[in-house]
Amino acid sequence: MAEYIAQGVFRLMNAVSTESYASVAGKMEGDGPLGKYFDEIIEDSHFGRQTWEQAESQFQLEAVSLAIRKSGLQKENIDAVCSGDLINQCIGSAYGLRELEIPFLGLYGACSTIAEGLLITSLLIDSGAVRRTIAVTSSHFSTAERQFRTPLSYGGQRTPTAQWTCTASGAVMLSGETGGVRIVGGCIGKIADMGISDITNMGSAMAPAAAETIKRYLAATGTSPDDYDRIITGDLGTVGSTLVKELLIRQGIDISRQHCDCGSMIFDNEKQDTHCGGSGCGCSASVLCGYFLPQLESGQLRNVLFAATGALMSPMSLQQGETIPSIAHLVHFRKE
Amino acid sequence: MAEYIAQGVFRLMNAVSTESYASVAGKMEGDGPLGKYFDEIIEDSHFGRQTWEQAESQFQLEAVSLAIRKSGLQKENIDAVCSGDLINQCIGSAYGLRELEIPFLGLYGACSTIAEGLLITSLLIDSGAVRRTIAVTSSHFSTAERQFRTPLSYGGQRTPTAQWTCTASGAVMLSGETGGVRIVGGCIGKIADMGISDITNMGSAMAPAAAETIKRYLAATGTSPDDYDRIITGDLGTVGSTLVKELLIRQGIDISRQHCDCGSMIFDNEKQDTHCGGSGCGCSASVLCGYFLPQLESGQLRNVLFAATGALMSPMSLQQGETIPSIAHLVHFRKE
Repeated sequence: MAEYIAQGVFRLMNAVSTESYASVAGKMEGDGPLGKYFDEIIEDSHFGRQTWEQAESQFQLEAVSLAIRKSGLQKENIDAVCSGDLINQCIGSAYGLRELEIPFLGLYGACSTIAEGLLITSLLIDSGAVRRTIAVTSSHFSTAERQFRTPLSYGGQRTPTAQWTCTASGAVMLSGETGGVRIVGGCIGKIADMGISDITNMGSAMAPAAAETIKRYLAATGTSPDDYDRIITGDLGTVGSTLVKELLIRQGIDISRQHCDCGSMIFDNEKQDTHCGGSGCGCSASVLCGYFLPQLESGQLRNVLFAATGALMSPMSLQQGETIPSIAHLVHFRKE
Repeated sequence: MAEYIAQGVFRLMNAVSTESYASVAGKMEGDGPLGKYFDEIIEDSHFGRQTWEQAESQFQLEAVSLAIRKSGLQKENIDAVCSGDLINQCIGSAYGLRELEIPFLGLYGACSTIAEGLLITSLLIDSGAVRRTIAVTSSHFSTAERQFRTPLSYGGQRTPTAQWTCTASGAVMLSGETGGVRIVGGCIGKIADMGISDITNMGSAMAPAAAETIKRYLAATGTSPDDYDRIITGDLGTVGSTLVKELLIRQGIDISRQHCDCGSMIFDNEKQDTHCGGSGCGCSASVLCGYFLPQLESGQLRNVLFAATGALMSPMSLQQGETIPSIAHLVHFRKE
């Protein structure tokens, strides 16, 4: 059973734990400071396929297959997979996981998708309806760049606030077994929109959503940042990370000692010329699975909030003069 | 608690019931045979907004607002809304529901989205994490046509197997209260792909997914079509409806007496020149909320399977030579 705490905030009473997880990343992510933590580095940006979209599907299939292999189980043992990506109509997910024949729930949470998938799959297990699930997501620099910005061959200049979409995927297998890293609570994000319309400054657009979600979870659970080892955001980048701390400080919440951001960690922004850092669904998913979950599993970290952030605009909505709505979903991990 | 029956198939033991529902449809849907059943008909295809995408958002906002008004509750009483649509990055949902400030879970299940949303929200309530949810989805003829096919002003000829994307939205509010129409079980769909690549013949692409899901639910629950008053598919249209029955007959399952299809019912295909019928996320959602749920609520129908179908391709995946993967999620409704 889960316990209702407040609107969109809940606590999980029964064990829902990671049984396995896997991360697969591209060459540039492999060359970054977290490169050694990923399970697999794929040097070929096409991953042996003909198009970048097919390559992204392959990243996702590989992450799920690896998570299953690491668990020692078979795909028939997985009752549901929750997945989404940034490509129009989420084809990275649908084509990537098509051959697995695992019951499939498609999500669209932009770069917040891995946290959304973890919230949903943990509650599906908690209900008893399914026994074992996988939450997975992916992004690919080349599929995102041509869809959201400009054709790669155009060679457009990137602004100082721009982020670099990660080529990566991360998959988390959950079950009711004990022993892994537990999910003990969560907060479903609300859509926030502070009026930012600059597609090259996504960190600023997403920071208010992260601040709102973190604040709401802390308030509902009666906890403070000092109760946690880490408060991790998804892909705010360096500008967005400064902003989220500032927004929370103004409300009396200081997360500066606990905060880290997957997007700010995955690249060496100066050496790799990645401006404000990494982004994309695969950014927070691969950093969670490659870097943070192993530290939780080993007990190095014990109590962690993970708030992945997503920007819910499209190129068309911006062309139509809209601003960028964003969202952050929060997952509370604990190792006992 | 939910009971696990088989991979992706479950039974709900506690009450999870409709507390309210609403349907909003466009002029052409209003002129069709089900026109009198929808809560609201919006004659203006722009719904007072400047673009069709904004109009689709308005349809979704109206359906959710109406469902809340009909319940006598406030938006603060809703703990989570699950929503998705067909527009790239699901902007129909994100911009439509932005102002509500209800915790938001974005889905992408193409035209199966209302069933996917009902499965997820029913299990969220069942877990105890949330008390009251809304599942909603929308589609708009003009947003879909220019995105998936050709600009409207191009005036392309439509093939005999083509379907007409409905301009409509449907929203279902669920809670743990008794008294409404109960959701007593469900089946999470698997991705099926029989190699169809004709974007103007979506019914044929989706029929195998519907057949697989219906067969799997019947087998897992040990029931036969005669146990149900209706077996409803989402938007197979007339060609797909013939196919799903044929596919199931070959496996010894005859649904011909119980089967009906929202896409085949919403238009008078001859008079309205809609070829094989209606389609789109809003098709099955509005027909469920406008036509079937009231019949269940009144006891006219008592035991119904609702399997909404979705095609998970994109224009780009087809340009890259891919076939059309499809999916069907099944919700089992009962009135006691």
